[in-house]
Amino acid sequence: MVILKGDERLDHLLAEGLRIIQSPSVFSFSVDAVLLARFTYLPIQKGNIIDLCSGNGVIPLFLSARTKGMITGVEIQDRLVDMANRSIHYNQLENQVKVVKGDVKGIARQLGYAKYDVVTCNPPYFPVDTNKHKNENEHYAIARHEILCTLEDTIQSASQLVKHGGKVSFVHRPGRLLDIVTLMRKYEIEPKRIQLVYPEQGKEANVLLVEGIKKGKPDLKILPPLYIYETSGEYTKEMRLMLYGD
Amino acid sequence: MVILKGDERLDHLLAEGLRIIQSPSVFSFSVDAVLLARFTYLPIQKGNIIDLCSGNGVIPLFLSARTKGMITGVEIQDRLVDMANRSIHYNQLENQVKVVKGDVKGIARQLGYAKYDVVTCNPPYFPVDTNKHKNENEHYAIARHEILCTLEDTIQSASQLVKHGGKVSFVHRPGRLLDIVTLMRKYEIEPKRIQLVYPEQGKEANVLLVEGIKKGKPDLKILPPLYIYETSGEYTKEMRLMLYGD
Repeated sequence: MVILKGDERLDHLLAEGLRIIQSPSVFSFSVDAVLLARFTYLPIQKGNIIDLCSGNGVIPLFLSARTKGMITGVEIQDRLVDMANRSIHYNQLENQVKVVKGDVKGIARQLGYAKYDVVTCNPPYFPVDTNKHKNENEHYAIARHEILCTLEDTIQSASQLVKHGGKVSFVHRPGRLLDIVTLMRKYEIEPKRIQLVYPEQGKEANVLLVEGIKKGKPDLKILPPLYIYETSGEYTKEMRLMLYGD
Repeated sequence: MVILKGDERLDHLLAEGLRIIQSPSVFSFSVDAVLLARFTYLPIQKGNIIDLCSGNGVIPLFLSARTKGMITGVEIQDRLVDMANRSIHYNQLENQVKVVKGDVKGIARQLGYAKYDVVTCNPPYFPVDTNKHKNENEHYAIARHEILCTLEDTIQSASQLVKHGGKVSFVHRPGRLLDIVTLMRKYEIEPKRIQLVYPEQGKEANVLLVEGIKKGKPDLKILPPLYIYETSGEYTKEMRLMLYGD
């Protein structure tokens, strides 16, 4: 049983066999969330995992299919926290997954310092620009623009939440690569794995995945590139596997 | 006419229709030089170009086929300067290309500040480690390890040599990505284009190409990846074009 409000839909997460509440006017997840959930390291049997800027809880739901660890999402928008927890309930994941309302800035004071094995985050990508987001509704503007938290806020909180030796994964735009790795080092998260995602062969990268280790030693690997589409316009085999599980 | 000394050979640069003096016991260029020469921006009709850590002059020779600009190489080892200038003479490029003996550290005092449109550099890749390079002869040890100049020395000199708005290109190992972009920003060279080179599909990147602009605005592009080999073990089409011109 699920209560859908307004224009909400109960969409499928096919590869995971889960369902998720989405709304075209409030929040729908993007392929970037799929990419981050698949890229990030996860302990399989146990551990504490936290996802910042969780939106409708899409990353916690994805991760629940890959780990028995406890997963907490943090989201600042009440409406999205409500959507996330209805999805968690529908999927009967209340014992493993929860999404709490909270401000990423200073969230470790509420949730604890150095308690988490893994932190993931798909943060707002765009700097605050009143012209650009004035045509968006408030829900999307907050999710997409650094209105309520900046990239530095998310990295600082991730660093406070994660254990020494724990892992932190971000998805962002390649144009912010320099900012993100500089800020990670500033907050003692050493970048260890980077993967670039390209819309198709011959195009510039449009998604950056980066994982670092709290107080890790410098030793960066750049993984094989990932392509979203074949030149025919169909999803690549890797993407079909991530999205549909076949 | 060319005088070859010791175990020197007169190798072909097929795609450029040039010849180059190499020696297995002193210096032979690597594919990384080919990649940097192809990656770097060049003015076509005129301009001043400088290549640091030139070795046997391979990058100046490659670049001479793509520009009418004046090309200066800087190399600290007498024996390599001599090889480079004999190659330049053999190819009748004395009016366009020269390789001078010099120490990259402080080389702008000798060659001039902010006079160059383009700076290229294929620097020594490896930190000084007495165990690692004690089995190498001195020529290779100096070319491969940061014995006589560090990454920071090369970036500082590149920044001093290049004009405001001029371009600086480096080739290095992906593991040094963070160091290189951090140092570029420290010396006011804003990274603008990155390309990762992979030995073949499914493997981690093993070469990093990066180009920045002196006092440029932040706007980083990550170009499509480049593969060296097909899974069959043959060079890819792109590499054959670079190496053989067909």
